[in-house]
Amino acid sequence: MAKRLAGAHRRVARNFGSKRRVGRSMNTTRPSSRALVAPEADLAKLQRRVDACNTILDQDLDTFVPFCIGGKRLGYLKESFAAKLERHGNVFVRQSEGIALHEQLQSERIRTEEVGKVMQQLWNEGTIVGWREELFPVRESFHDSPMLLLERAAVAHFGVKAYGVHMNGFVKDSNGNEFLWVARRSATKPTFPGMLDHLVAGGQGQIGCMDNVVKEAEEEAGIPRELASQARSVGAVSYRMKVDEGVKQDVLYVYDLELPEDFVPRAMDGEVEQFMLWSIERVMDSVANTQEWKPNCVLVVIDFLIRHGHIHADQPGYLQLLASLRQADLS
Amino acid sequence: MAKRLAGAHRRVARNFGSKRRVGRSMNTTRPSSRALVAPEADLAKLQRRVDACNTILDQDLDTFVPFCIGGKRLGYLKESFAAKLERHGNVFVRQSEGIALHEQLQSERIRTEEVGKVMQQLWNEGTIVGWREELFPVRESFHDSPMLLLERAAVAHFGVKAYGVHMNGFVKDSNGNEFLWVARRSATKPTFPGMLDHLVAGGQGQIGCMDNVVKEAEEEAGIPRELASQARSVGAVSYRMKVDEGVKQDVLYVYDLELPEDFVPRAMDGEVEQFMLWSIERVMDSVANTQEWKPNCVLVVIDFLIRHGHIHADQPGYLQLLASLRQADLS
Repeated sequence: MAKRLAGAHRRVARNFGSKRRVGRSMNTTRPSSRALVAPEADLAKLQRRVDACNTILDQDLDTFVPFCIGGKRLGYLKESFAAKLERHGNVFVRQSEGIALHEQLQSERIRTEEVGKVMQQLWNEGTIVGWREELFPVRESFHDSPMLLLERAAVAHFGVKAYGVHMNGFVKDSNGNEFLWVARRSATKPTFPGMLDHLVAGGQGQIGCMDNVVKEAEEEAGIPRELASQARSVGAVSYRMKVDEGVKQDVLYVYDLELPEDFVPRAMDGEVEQFMLWSIERVMDSVANTQEWKPNCVLVVIDFLIRHGHIHADQPGYLQLLASLRQADLS
Repeated sequence: MAKRLAGAHRRVARNFGSKRRVGRSMNTTRPSSRALVAPEADLAKLQRRVDACNTILDQDLDTFVPFCIGGKRLGYLKESFAAKLERHGNVFVRQSEGIALHEQLQSERIRTEEVGKVMQQLWNEGTIVGWREELFPVRESFHDSPMLLLERAAVAHFGVKAYGVHMNGFVKDSNGNEFLWVARRSATKPTFPGMLDHLVAGGQGQIGCMDNVVKEAEEEAGIPRELASQARSVGAVSYRMKVDEGVKQDVLYVYDLELPEDFVPRAMDGEVEQFMLWSIERVMDSVANTQEWKPNCVLVVIDFLIRHGHIHADQPGYLQLLASLRQADLS
């Protein structure tokens, strides 16, 4: 199977070094895109990749200490970090429900200020590393007002929900066959160097999701605003993953952008080594059989494969795979 | 707002009585399909329609009696129906976990036979009405082997999971504007007469989902097999609803079929009064502001609107709406 696919890749897809059309001649192995469905066995492999992003199940949450503001549970802490916060009793208080912000810190502004001072101390002590001087909004769900702005370097320790945007940039040839633009991350990136990534992806800050997609598309892949603004919001995925600092719980907003066959993205900011246009078969094979993808991209790619019919309802394991893409908190 | 939309409908969409092209002239109010997004306030209205399909929350399940086979919970019964089953002690046994099939009924064939006899009696007594002489597979999840085949008229009383296929038949005009084919159910149908429905929808029986879509497309809407077989599997939705007999828990497999602009479906089997090609605005307005849609279609239509970017991530309530489309058991 792997050998056959590898052969197909050579025929079907290649990296584009210059402007080329994705034409009929590039896909001689399959008559139509409808035939491009995952072999039955692969769904179990895809499921394992999704499960690798969901390493904290509901029952596992008991092993972490809830972080609360005003009675609302906003994050999860490792006990070792909770113990450090507790030493700053004018800001963090141990209660039966977990670690809460002191009830006298009643406004977002005051919370941000007081928590900021403690974070600075924890940074001085070396508990928090890589200070970013960038504030991250802590909130119960995406459209709520922030209850606290937290230095970004501390976010992972608090296990609060974070949001991102991921955009699938795809091409359809004249036969209806689809191809996905795949980015190879720069080997010098501090996180996930050399791994496969989406054409456009980024953390969600204070601007709107669509504005963020357009901005990142321009900065990361040289996609003109007019083209990028044709991207469509098509859903979201979520996951909850164990990390060194504790709990990572993310919601990724998913966008699709159909690109003209002759468009070639350009690596603009040194974060991407190269962009490659891959056949759906090659994408599916790389997700199922390699660990080359940045882990959270896998959820977005599988969501794309499902929404575009490359994985279908008659395959055993379909519903389980579908459900697992949003099994973590989606709010 | 309603007035403006109503005006837009007159300009943008109309019922097609004959073959007509969906041309540029048909949409003069909006420059491109990207602009066709739900006004902010409508997401709350759409949410209410979805919630109307999810009238049994997890905590409400305690008010029903679990129905078990071999220790597996496969359905939910009203206490009044459970009491009737209990009278047939050689088949149904009251246990701490609920009503279980007698442990001596060890094969699917024997269970089907013995349960069938009881159902026949309950039909004679008038507890079960509308005998169909059609067997329905009772299983833990879709790709599992059936543990019991149950007369279809009895299914609603057992609250077991059922599956269906729904197909969005849509058209894209030369400007990229999308239109959805909507069916008006015949006024003489026993269920949901006169309500709005999908171009193609049906219960999922013993054949595959895709085969079912192609078959129903031909029978219900006169769509040739070659065209229908281009439908794409694009996901699934689930819901759990209170009904007279007890609990209805369904999974609907969702398919999209892009139809040529000049294709017009034909009502083939007398179950559909007429097919209408509606603008996305009109579809969205009818879901948000009327109760004309067959309730479970609403989930599939909203899923379509989300996947096609007509509802987008920057709208408050987006994640809640998205999550609610699959909040019930999806297996």
